[in-house]
Amino acid sequence: MQPKTRTDHFRAIQKNIRNRLSEFKLDCFLITSLPHVRYISGFSGSAGLCLIFNNSKYFITDKRYTEQAAKEISGWKIIPSQNDIFETIAENNLIPNNYRIGIDGNNLTFAQYQNLKKLFPNNRVLPKAGFIEDVAIVKDAYEIEQITKAVEISDKVFSKILNIIKPGIRELDISAEITYLHKKFGAERDAFEPIVASGINSAFPHARSSSKKLRKGDIITIDIGCVVNGYNSDMTRTIFLGKPARPSGEPKSDTVKIYRTVLSAQLNAIEAAIEGLTYKELDAVARNTITNADYSEYFTHSLGHGVGLQIHEPPRLSVKTPGNLKADTVVTIEPGIYIPNFGGVRIEDIIVISRQRNKQHPNILTQSTKEMIIL
Amino acid sequence: MQPKTRTDHFRAIQKNIRNRLSEFKLDCFLITSLPHVRYISGFSGSAGLCLIFNNSKYFITDKRYTEQAAKEISGWKIIPSQNDIFETIAENNLIPNNYRIGIDGNNLTFAQYQNLKKLFPNNRVLPKAGFIEDVAIVKDAYEIEQITKAVEISDKVFSKILNIIKPGIRELDISAEITYLHKKFGAERDAFEPIVASGINSAFPHARSSSKKLRKGDIITIDIGCVVNGYNSDMTRTIFLGKPARPSGEPKSDTVKIYRTVLSAQLNAIEAAIEGLTYKELDAVARNTITNADYSEYFTHSLGHGVGLQIHEPPRLSVKTPGNLKADTVVTIEPGIYIPNFGGVRIEDIIVISRQRNKQHPNILTQSTKEMIIL
Repeated sequence: MQPKTRTDHFRAIQKNIRNRLSEFKLDCFLITSLPHVRYISGFSGSAGLCLIFNNSKYFITDKRYTEQAAKEISGWKIIPSQNDIFETIAENNLIPNNYRIGIDGNNLTFAQYQNLKKLFPNNRVLPKAGFIEDVAIVKDAYEIEQITKAVEISDKVFSKILNIIKPGIRELDISAEITYLHKKFGAERDAFEPIVASGINSAFPHARSSSKKLRKGDIITIDIGCVVNGYNSDMTRTIFLGKPARPSGEPKSDTVKIYRTVLSAQLNAIEAAIEGLTYKELDAVARNTITNADYSEYFTHSLGHGVGLQIHEPPRLSVKTPGNLKADTVVTIEPGIYIPNFGGVRIEDIIVISRQRNKQHPNILTQSTKEMIIL
Repeated sequence: MQPKTRTDHFRAIQKNIRNRLSEFKLDCFLITSLPHVRYISGFSGSAGLCLIFNNSKYFITDKRYTEQAAKEISGWKIIPSQNDIFETIAENNLIPNNYRIGIDGNNLTFAQYQNLKKLFPNNRVLPKAGFIEDVAIVKDAYEIEQITKAVEISDKVFSKILNIIKPGIRELDISAEITYLHKKFGAERDAFEPIVASGINSAFPHARSSSKKLRKGDIITIDIGCVVNGYNSDMTRTIFLGKPARPSGEPKSDTVKIYRTVLSAQLNAIEAAIEGLTYKELDAVARNTITNADYSEYFTHSLGHGVGLQIHEPPRLSVKTPGNLKADTVVTIEPGIYIPNFGGVRIEDIIVISRQRNKQHPNILTQSTKEMIIL
């Protein structure tokens, strides 16, 4: 994670990818997924692909984007395409016969695969899942800087919208304000449609903002993120409109206990997030806290996910995902408890995985308070 | 295009799709692309797939979405999935041996295809491009109603933002306002990031809103759209901040002539858009108008595209696309002239293709004025 300029940043990534070519016994790799194209080249447009060899690299795009590509990327030979981009590669004889071509089977469509097989009958087309994504898991200083900027903007937006939350306002009005402020504060756009889920809507982890009006006593879950130079932020806070109701004799609807449990689970996971721990172990840290408080069946999703040029990218911090945490991976830590027909609480920060427990650990990018906010 | 309730609407679509099963000699079709899933079932969540047979239909989704599915779709047997959705289909023996399974190779990834082949070794998996999309080209009254609502909201937003456009304001500020107003006026969200391209930025058909401040004399291209019940709107207007400059002796930078040429091309194409005409012929109507005014090389994209549950869907109104216009297809008509390092003009409406020339023709949904607006 040495400090890096944009140019150094891309040079280092391309070196990593080239190392993988020999590791996977490939002569070249075809990168078609736009976030991966941006990752390796810096191109931010919506059509274009990269073809990387050990000693050369091509960027192929249609006429609309050649000028933008020339501005954004450096060191790539830009090939303008009139028709199908794959055909352009064939017409320009960019790939010699018998070369082994790597592709990402998780992103290439079946129709694209068939097209490649037809256009390159004398080559082997080899799907290698994770070829780019496994490299992208570890972030460098340039990337962490972009993510930090996006996180700071969302923090600022969150503190601003607290001023407009009051009974009678619609979830969608708050959502509209969030999107507006993200852009006003310098983001390119939202990372995803803001989630503002109030009352029993907060019991759905993937609720959408609706035209439901806020009412006194509502739990409100706010899950937002924005994009800066392609990099995403992602944060969730759960707040309360007036003192939370505590129905008598039903611990499952004890809002204060639920909030404290989620917060403890989150803090415990953040404290435990050190290089080497398995994803499963980290998920278990939060899950155990929630289980001990007797809410295990209400934490219905995994603990978190990687964040970078994609809002959801590997690693998935889940019981089911094999693998160990690597230093300088950027992930969300977002446990939640969702009680059907009552409401839910989720608290989510973005953190950078630490190499060891020291003064820099934990490295939490999100700065918004996690104290219970009662408006 | 008879009037239809939501229930009638989905029943008719499912009948059309089932007719195609026998036409393509398939026993079932697996629908994985989310806009297609929404098209055939009404499910609006972000994970789930449809499996349709002649006499049964299944909707498979993970636990997060079973409740939402139960609310949104009717007549489908909902199968909750714990793990991989394809594995759930296999575990539940939903597809008998030797059944021929249709898939959409343009949307299924290569990895998904491999997974299917492994899970269903005794079936044939047959890619049929356009299986859903070719049906979705023709809209019914329910769909046209949703698109019309989205178009009306964007019209309203366009007229509102004219009030805030003045020298000194950033492109991104206007873009933020557009997104905000779309939601305030009842849209789910933007159909795409609003394009506000001023000055020489307007020479890029796919410009992005930037932090550039507007200046007196700027051409400003505004391309916006929003989503209502999943259906998209899409409109472009080009306006002028102060009287357009007319550099001496250079007809290529005669803004008024460029504007009038684009508008004539657009009106001519709209007038010509009758069932039966080929896509190529319709594109040619606009292109000829522009060529006759000596701007042919500056109209660098195709004339328009279908709009529905996807912001860009078939048909593409292009020289290269084979096919004829069908009545009740909803398309954009959006010619443009882009002079590099000077600026560009694009004018875009959404229209419904007419069956014949009569009182109902042309059926233009977009209502915003196309008179030259000088602010």
